Parts: sequence; C-alpha cells; structure tokens
Amino acid sequence: MRRLVRPFVLLKLVRPPVLLFALACTAVPAPADEGMWLVSHPPREILAQRHGFEPTAAWLEHMQKSAVRMDASGSLVSRDGLVMTNHHVGSTQLERLSTAERDLLRDGFLARTRDAELRCPDMAMQVLWRIEDVTERVSAAVAAGLSPADAFEARRRVLAEIEQEARQRTGLDCEVVTLYGGARQHLYGYRRYTDVRLVMAPEMDIAFFGGDTDNFEYPRYDLDVCFFRIYENGEPLKAEHYLRWSAGGAADGDLVFVFGHPYRTQRLHTVAHLRFLRDVELPEKLRSLWRREVKLAEFRQRGPEQARVAGDEFFGVQNSRKALTGILQGLHDPELIAEKQRAETLLREVVPARGGNAENDPWDRIERALLRYREFFGRQDLLNGRYALRSELLEIALGLVRLADELPKPSAERLPEYRDAELESVYLQLYSPAPINLDLEAHRIASGLSLMAERLGADDALVAELLDGRSPTARAAQLVRGTTLVDVAARRQLAEGGAAALAASTDELLAFARRYDRRSRELRERYEREVESELASAYQAIAAARFERFGEEQYPDATSTLRMSFGLIGGYEENGRSVPAFTDLAGLYRRHAERAGQPGFALPPRWLERRERLRLETPFNFVCSADIIGGNSGSPVVNRSGEVVGLVFDGNIHGLVWDIAFTETRARAVAVDSRAIIEALREMYDARELVAELTGR
Amino acid sequence: MRRLVRPFVLLKLVRPPVLLFALACTAVPAPADEGMWLVSHPPREILAQRHGFEPTAAWLEHMQKSAVRMDASGSLVSRDGLVMTNHHVGSTQLERLSTAERDLLRDGFLARTRDAELRCPDMAMQVLWRIEDVTERVSAAVAAGLSPADAFEARRRVLAEIEQEARQRTGLDCEVVTLYGGARQHLYGYRRYTDVRLVMAPEMDIAFFGGDTDNFEYPRYDLDVCFFRIYENGEPLKAEHYLRWSAGGAADGDLVFVFGHPYRTQRLHTVAHLRFLRDVELPEKLRSLWRREVKLAEFRQRGPEQARVAGDEFFGVQNSRKALTGILQGLHDPELIAEKQRAETLLREVVPARGGNAENDPWDRIERALLRYREFFGRQDLLNGRYALRSELLEIALGLVRLADELPKPSAERLPEYRDAELESVYLQLYSPAPINLDLEAHRIASGLSLMAERLGADDALVAELLDGRSPTARAAQLVRGTTLVDVAARRQLAEGGAAALAASTDELLAFARRYDRRSRELRERYEREVESELASAYQAIAAARFERFGEEQYPDATSTLRMSFGLIGGYEENGRSVPAFTDLAGLYRRHAERAGQPGFALPPRWLERRERLRLETPFNFVCSADIIGGNSGSPVVNRSGEVVGLVFDGNIHGLVWDIAFTETRARAVAVDSRAIIEALREMYDARELVAELTGR
Repeated sequence: MRRLVRPFVLLKLVRPPVLLFALACTAVPAPADEGMWLVSHPPREILAQRHGFEPTAAWLEHMQKSAVRMDASGSLVSRDGLVMTNHHVGSTQLERLSTAERDLLRDGFLARTRDAELRCPDMAMQVLWRIEDVTERVSAAVAAGLSPADAFEARRRVLAEIEQEARQRTGLDCEVVTLYGGARQHLYGYRRYTDVRLVMAPEMDIAFFGGDTDNFEYPRYDLDVCFFRIYENGEPLKAEHYLRWSAGGAADGDLVFVFGHPYRTQRLHTVAHLRFLRDVELPEKLRSLWRREVKLAEFRQRGPEQARVAGDEFFGVQNSRKALTGILQGLHDPELIAEKQRAETLLREVVPARGGNAENDPWDRIERALLRYREFFGRQDLLNGRYALRSELLEIALGLVRLADELPKPSAERLPEYRDAELESVYLQLYSPAPINLDLEAHRIASGLSLMAERLGADDALVAELLDGRSPTARAAQLVRGTTLVDVAARRQLAEGGAAALAASTDELLAFARRYDRRSRELRERYEREVESELASAYQAIAAARFERFGEEQYPDATSTLRMSFGLIGGYEENGRSVPAFTDLAGLYRRHAERAGQPGFALPPRWLERRERLRLETPFNFVCSADIIGGNSGSPVVNRSGEVVGLVFDGNIHGLVWDIAFTETRARAVAVDSRAIIEALREMYDARELVAELTGR
Repeated sequence: MRRLVRPFVLLKLVRPPVLLFALACTAVPAPADEGMWLVSHPPREILAQRHGFEPTAAWLEHMQKSAVRMDASGSLVSRDGLVMTNHHVGSTQLERLSTAERDLLRDGFLARTRDAELRCPDMAMQVLWRIEDVTERVSAAVAAGLSPADAFEARRRVLAEIEQEARQRTGLDCEVVTLYGGARQHLYGYRRYTDVRLVMAPEMDIAFFGGDTDNFEYPRYDLDVCFFRIYENGEPLKAEHYLRWSAGGAADGDLVFVFGHPYRTQRLHTVAHLRFLRDVELPEKLRSLWRREVKLAEFRQRGPEQARVAGDEFFGVQNSRKALTGILQGLHDPELIAEKQRAETLLREVVPARGGNAENDPWDRIERALLRYREFFGRQDLLNGRYALRSELLEIALGLVRLADELPKPSAERLPEYRDAELESVYLQLYSPAPINLDLEAHRIASGLSLMAERLGADDALVAELLDGRSPTARAAQLVRGTTLVDVAARRQLAEGGAAALAASTDELLAFARRYDRRSRELRERYEREVESELASAYQAIAAARFERFGEEQYPDATSTLRMSFGLIGGYEENGRSVPAFTDLAGLYRRHAERAGQPGFALPPRWLERRERLRLETPFNFVCSADIIGGNSGSPVVNRSGEVVGLVFDGNIHGLVWDIAFTETRARAVAVDSRAIIEALREMYDARELVAELTGR
C-alpha cells in the first residue's frame, strides 16, 4: 500500500528507497538474538532452548492481529480501536492537520472526547488477518527455461492473478509476499481501515528531544509516541484483538518481543552487490540527501511558516542521511567486507551454482547485472528515486497521468501500484484534502530540476525537455502557477474523466507530468529488464539451493511485512564506559540543563512548568537486543505475556549496520518505556481518559 | 602569498578554488559602471565624461599605497598603521587567538592600549609599492612556435627569473601579474608585513547579524568590521599613506570608489568553458560543499567547544555554497548563455583565429581541452581542490614534504608557491603557534577520506593506498594519534633537517603526506600539461587579437591584485517593491524583533542593553553599483576626496553572477556605512581612543 510515494516519509528507522528484490535466507545458524522471523514460522527451538519460552498458536495469533501496518508499524492497544505508534510516524498527518495558526506538529494535540478526534486526510492502516502458502501455484505458472526477463514477467502476472482472485474470495486486501529469495510465496490478507483519527500527540520538542544530535544515539530521552483511533462505519473499531498494558513494565535482563514491519534488509547481498551499495548506490543517495538538507534548511530560514511547512520533510531528510551514513560506514569497514567475502567463498563451495557452467554462476550474473546498472543508476535514481524531483503536486499529476494509462488495462497487467487492490490507497492520496503549500512546491520543483541539470548537464535531452527553455526556478514558478491541482475537485474531475479529460486539459503541470512519466517509465522498464529480473533470477538460484539446505529454520530478509524479533533488555560498553539499559525522567532534565540553548534541546513549556509533578525515577527509554530495521518504528515491545512494556522508536548508531549485517556487541533497538508514557499522559497532559483506556485503571 | 592553502578561507565574497588562468579583456565597451580597473590604467574617459571626475596621479598613488592586500582586502586608516577590514576576513585570526575560555570570535575584542593588542599567529599584509611593465622581456623569452606545454614552461621560468631578480634589486615582494589574457605582464612590488596585531573586533552576532539567512541579501544590518595594526621592528608602522575618514559620510546618488583585490572573474570565458563550469565544475564543487556543510553541522552539534572550533570553517562553507549557487543559477539562465553565445559568435567573426586552420581555432581548442578535463576533473578536484581532504595538520605535513623536495632546486624551477619570494609566507604558516584541535582534525581527515571512497570507490588504487587497509574513521584516528606535528618545535626540526630528517621520521602523517603528495603532483602535472597550458595558449590567442583592437581602454579579468571600481550609491526594485540604498540602526532592531529567536538573529547583550545610547537614525549599511567580486571583502569605499565613507563586506544575491557577467539592474555591492562604525565604536564599545585615531576627533 501507499505506493504513490510521498516526497519523504519520515521514519527514524528509515526505509531506504529502492527495494531491489526480497532476498534470501541466512546461510548459517543465527547468532544470539538475530532474526526478523515470520509469525507463521517462529524460532521455536531457539526460544525454547535459549529462553525457555514456547509461544502458543493463540499467543501468536493474538500478536499478529494486534499488530498494525501503516507507513511503518503500530499496534492496537484498546478494545475501542486505539492505535499506538511513534510521533515521528504520525508526524506527516500532524503536519497535514496543521495550519499557520494551529501547529499540531510543534504543539501536540489531545482529544478529550471522541468528537474532538481529528480525521486524518490520507492515512490507512492494515491488520494481517490470514496467511496462505501459494508457492506451488506460483512455481507452476513460471515455466522452467524461461529467460530471466520472461520469468520475471510470468511471475508478476501470476502474482497479480492470485491477489485479485483472493481479494474477490476473501474481501481482504491481498498481497503475495516473496520470501527466502523466491523459495516461498505467501499470500497475506489484510483488513484495511481508512477512517483513522488523531487522538493524542505530544509536542515535537519532547517527542524528538535531542533532535538530529541525539537521533540514533543512546542514552535517549524521547516521548516518541502518538495515538490514533481506527473507525469503521463511523464508529470506533470494536477490536477483536488488542494488546494489554503491562502493570509493572520490564526490567534489565528481561526477554522481550517486537512485532513490526521491517521494511528491507540486505543481509544476503553478495559481495559484489555490497560493493555496488558502497561505491554507487549509497554515495549517490547521500549526495542527494546532503544537497536536499541544505536546500531545505535554506527554505526554512525564510520565515516561521516556511519552517513549519518544511519541518516534517527536513527531519525526514536528516534522519535518512544519518541512517545511510551509518550503513556506509559499515561498508567502509574492511573487516565487514572481508567477513562477508569469507562467508561467500564458503557458500560458493557448499552450494554449487546450478546450470553447471560459469555463464550461469549466479554470483557472476549479479556482478554483471550491477556493472550494467552502473551505467544508468544515476539517471534512474534521478527519475524514480526517492530523493530526486519530488513534490506533492507533481505526485498528484503523475498519479492522474498513470491512472488514465493504467485503468483501462486488466488489473493483472497494470503497474503493480495501480492494481485493483491498490486503488483505494491511490484515491485516498489523490483526493487528500491536506493543504499544499505553493511556496514549498515551487521550491521542491526548482530544486529537483536544478538537481537534474547539475547531474546530467543542462544540455542533456531529458533536462532540456523538462526545462522547456527556462531556468529551473522560472520553470518551477511557471508550473506551480499553471496548475489547478491544488483543488481536490479539479483532481476528481480529471481522474473521473480519464484519458479524454487529460487530453483536453491545459494544466501545465499535467503536461509536464506526461513528459516526465514517459521518461520515467522508459528507465523503469530498462531497470526491470536489464537489472531487476537478472538479480531476481540469480538470487533465486542462490536462495533455492540455500533453502533446500536450511529450510524454514532461517528467517527471510525483511519484506515490509509482519515479523517478530526477540531479545534481552540490556546495556553495553562504549569507549570504555558502561551505557545502562534504562534512562529515567531525571536524566531528561539533566540533559536539558547540559545542552541548554542548543538546537533540538528545548523542552515544551509544560515540561518545565510541571516538572515537580513527575516521579523523576520513572524509566523513560530503554534498549534491547531485538533485531529491527527501518519500518519497525512504532512496533510494540511486549513481555512473555504479550503485554506492552515499550514502544520501539529508534536504533542506536551501532544498529544502523543491521541493514547489512547483524551484530549485538553494542547495537541495540531503542524504545520508550510504557511507564513513562503513562506518567506523561497523567501528569503532563491530564489525559486521564486515555490512561484509563490503556490500563483499565 | 599564502599559497599553503588553509582548509577554508572565510570570505563573504568567496574566492573560488581553481584559478584556471588570468583571462582576457572585455570585448565591447563596458556598460555603465562595469569594471575592475588597473590603478595604472584607470578609466579616465568614462570617469570624466560620465561623472566629471579626473583622478590625479597623486590621488591614485595615495589610494594604491593605502590599500592593503591580505587574504582579501583592507586599508590603512591611520598614521600609526591601523588597518581596517571585515570581521569575516579577520575571523580566522580571531578563531586562532581564541581558546575554550576566551572566544574572541563570538565575544569580540578591544585593545584599549597598544600593549593589549594581540599578535596574530600567522597573518601577513602587503602594500603595493611599485608597478613595472615587463611584457617585452616575457615575450622575448617565449619563442614563437613552441607547443602550448613548452610555452607554458618557458613563460613560467622567465616569470620566476624576473621576480627573483626584482626582489634582489628592490627588496620588495615581487610578483609578475599576467593581464589581458597574457597580452600584458606587470611586475608588482609589495611591501610585506608579518607582525600584525588585533586591535578591535565586535561580536560575531552583530558582525554577521542575519547569519546564513541574510548573507548575500539586502537590506542588511551588519557591523562587519575589525581593526588590526601593522608593526615594523616592534613599533607601529609609520604609514606614509593612509585614508582619512569622511566627516559627513555619503548620500544617495554619490559617486564612490572601491579599492580592493578581487580574486578572480570569469567574464571572458568561452561558451564551452561556461558550460563546463555549469555542468562539471560547479556541480562537483557544490556537491563537496553540501556534504561538508552537513558534516560540519553534525560535528558542531557534539558540544559547545566543537561548535566553537569549527565555527569559522562552517560559516566559510555556508558562504561558499551560497556564492557558488548564485553563479550556477546565473549559468542555468538560458538568456545568459544565449547572450554569451551571441557575443562569442560576433567575436569569432570580428577576430579571426590565428594560424588560419580549424585545428588552431582557439575556441575549439578550449572546448577540446575541457572535454579532456572532464575525464579527470573529479579526481583532480579531490586531490588538489579546496573542499576535499583538508586538515591543518595535513597541510603542515604536506608543507614539510614539499619544502624538502623543492628547496634544493633553484628558485625558478620550484613549484611557484615555494619560490624564494614565497618562503616567508610558507614558514609563517608552517610555524604558526595557532592551536590545533585534534577532534576536528580527525573529523576532517575521516570526512575527506570517506569523500574519496564515496567518489572513486573504496577499491580504487588511490583510495586503497591512502586508507592502507583501514576504514576512513579508523585511518584518521591512527594518523592523528601517530603524528607529532601539533608541536611547532617538531615542525621546525623537520623543516630544518630537510629530506634526511623526513626520511628518518616515523611520523605516520608525514608518511601519509608523502603518498598523498606523489598522487597530487601527478594530477597537477597532468592538469597543467593537458588542460591549463592549452587553455592559456588558446585564451592568449583570443586575447592578443582582442588587445590589439581594444588596448588598455578595457579592464582585465580579476587577478587577485589591486583594482579600482566605481559606482553610484543607489537602491533598486525587487518583486515590485523598492529597496532603498541605506538601512539604519533602527532597522537593525526592527529586524531583530521580527526574527526573534531564529538562528543568526540574536544580538550581543550590549546591543540590547545600550540601545538607548544609539542615534537610531544613523545609516548602517548601504549599496552601490561598484563592480566587485570575491576578494573585495574589506575594501574601503571612498568618496571623490579619497575619504572613507564605507567598507565593502558583501554583494547582494543578484551580484553573485558578476563572477561571469556584470549586470546593474539589481546587482549591488553592500557596505558598512562609516558613520555606523563610529557610532558603534563610541556608544557600544566606548572605544574613544580608536575613534580619535580614525577621525582625529
């Protein structure tokens, strides 16, 4: 869902942009608490042997149906459809619900009654309701001996058919998930909810205390939480499953579980692929991010309203920059590459390449495909990447252009993000009443066009076509002036009128989007043909052999779907000094005093005024060794009884490398303690109704 | 002077890094107040006809000998050797004179007695004392028919000989300046001073009020001034020439003059060269700047001491980023390129290429040389550019390595920056007692090494050689741990011991510098051989023909040497609103209130406490149409009588494009009004002695 990419999705645990392909399983038994496990195949043996814990089917089903999927993760926490997630996951909606006069992102929000809850303009949530193995049907549909490109197409077609048929049969949102590098295909059916309302959010200054300085660091002191409520037919959802609140919280050494939706890991990349990541993909992406961070900082300096409207995007960019820097630092560590190389050499001996000849060696095929990709990665990233030319109006225009092209086709033949199952999301975004700031739009388009001119040269055919004889700034101004797409009614008219309405329109931005889309599709097709299908086929060859050997006792790389992780609460050593697992509210005030006046370290007025009310010994944040990654933001941390003891909101700096390799000496997941949430709701926000709803007290 | 490049030279009017070659003269009569004129060939006719002003020889000599050359510009303003320049020109010295306990950059400084003046660790100043035309001697030494590379070498050799001989003859610092694209060679002889002491600097918050937000903008409210004093033989310099202070200041519409040292203009670039600038050089440099800005911001967030030590560099990077962005925006304007193209087409008809055949067409030769340069520009910029791997310790290590290599050669055969005439500067920097922050050094080296790995790939031979099997962070830590070059005595010992001492040393950074220097020289030589000499020869061909036609009635492109500009004080129109020429002190407080609490808009405590003392109607900053560029920072603005009425410190945003083309509709130079300087010295700083020294009252 949400394939209509918004300019920037703010996730502390960032979800990197290009999902190359859902990859393989791990090669050797997982060390310690490694693993993002399928709820349908939990690590029973490890849990039993190492931690004396045996999850029942009922326990697993309850956790599965209490977990909520959105841009990142969340969980149902009351019988009346209350959903808990991170402030930084809800922040886009907070920004969209704000105006120059009412800044919810900065000032927070509390609905004391159901009537006061604010409907989010374009937020959807899903709960995973059923899982079905469809591997055989997929395999049957992809004839042996097809070329990688043809196999890729055949697979795509059968997946779309399965999804559409299941959707009609079950009434659920259906999606086939490719696991273990293609060795298994699971059909996931979701209940979907689109009436979501804001219940409570704290102020930005306490939710993101420490700002960019403390982001991905530990110790931390953040109340990174907010609450939404799912409505169904205008009434609060009657939740069949929801998580109970732990009365006592957790303690150092406790076993805890995290249920969430890790977006993507790349732990099974070949060494050639890691080198591509290190030398091409990450440097290119960081290049765009550094630029964007500076450009946005400049825009925000223009005044308070500019600072407000670009705030969410700015923090998202900073967050991505820090996350990708962490991965790159890992890749620049020669030990890490050497370790991966050793494992790969072993694997290439243990798992002989299928097909028997060097031409077919999957490691070599991956290397060759990536060499080809080097030639156009920059251009592809500029047109289809996440940090390039992005604007809300342009996304709308592109959505209209693509809808008109795709809708006439049978669902299975459309671009995946325009299949029937996705249309509700597409329209939710397209008709979103969220306000659009034209200044920021013009800035984004000018910045994106200039980026293209900087990278490809101003005389490049694509750049010249898009600029149409103007400078980037002049062209952006003309496009923003020449569009009516700010108006939701205009969008609706164009969407309903289809190709004919588009052809008749004189909207400048639509005309621009048509040019852009043509070039973007060309490159997307080239990428799928020359790179993605090759990678998929080669990784499948590696993975199939691996799967035969290790089976489902391994976890698959993350795929934006529900996973369970587990680990122990516990501190670590850093620079010869011990970092304890828990911080407390007293520590918040110490850090505030220590960093007085520095950006990111302000406290909201009420946190200064009401300090005396707080029990300062209340645990505030804690770390545990559960295996998480981008997309896990907002995941509940639960104890053996499945009760909430915390809320994941970050990983520490050592955990950034988890994208490519798990380590647990110092890498940790960072969570808000459930006791701090209750203490703050009660003493800072007087949110007694909410406390009662969560705790029953 | 100062060829040992410091990591970043902070100049509002930034001096871009690669001086390709001093270029040609303008093709057509200058419009309006265009022109950075030689003091030896002032625009007599224009001044007389347009402004009724006829500068006498005495007036010109007085101005020449009152002007001071340093990293940028300054002027003598008292008989006792007092020098006025910008705060942002003095800021590097302010930072070097600071410690964690005494932050002169932030808090300012005032010496109430001569004894209290602070000697700067490594600041040199020059005053231009004589000018001699040596064109004939140079031409005679470069035989006709030489290849571009051989001609380049022959020219370099004869220039070195002339300089050395003149130095022995006159006792002055001597430098041959190539003007009008090589059509003229002038020998400039300078008096040089190395005992320079800090007299007065205001607080950063008032010197740079508005920060990055208002930088290159107008209206402005900055007291961007500071004062040094030149000492000779331990006594204040008895200045033969110095500027008097205007009693009344200047008014709207007044003719004013600017005497300063514009670093480099590129107004005579061919269109192919402008395209190279637009599509290769500026994007590459900006890419490094954006990255560095973010990296430095992260470093500064670590704590107040980190914020302090990296402050000067950070503001320099922000400033360069904004300046280069302005030039790039100009180049992205298709009108500008079309205009340049029209002029070039005309010129190619009017000035037929010499040699007669297409092979020799200088425009084509420039285009071909730049095509070759594209192949290694990135690598060259990484090794020899200004924004790549730079650290103070590494500069010292490189200085030692290069000194040992160069000193044994005859002066004329050395790298230009190690000729006898430059050695005093080299040693001044090498033995500078300025404190070096090891945290920042490790950060700079790690960041620079990582930049190389990002751009060239971690497996690139150069990168692997420099990293020596470590990650960038680990390698940087090892180098900083393994060097004794923080200690000035250790540097002195190594410098005096020459090659033998270096060979015996186990200093890790020295060993690194040797590797680095070898690669850096290879690329530098390749650049000179394949690009610089070709460009020089082709531009000379264009320029020689031009010079025959237009002669010295034109001004040459800027060459970091003394120039006079002139213009009228006057406002302009922007977005339909009129921007007046002058701001006043009342406006400062209005802007402060309007932007309360935003970064860059704080005022120093005394400016809040003593507000009532100020005559708020005092003019604060003003704009004029005088033609300036990077390097003009600190230039005095004088009236027809040669009296100080202001101090150039910036150009507005429209003036950034002056690097490549002069326009005067909205582009302006920005200056501090002399009256505000006196008002502030008297009422804010109680600096009555200084006021008396400046005004005689």
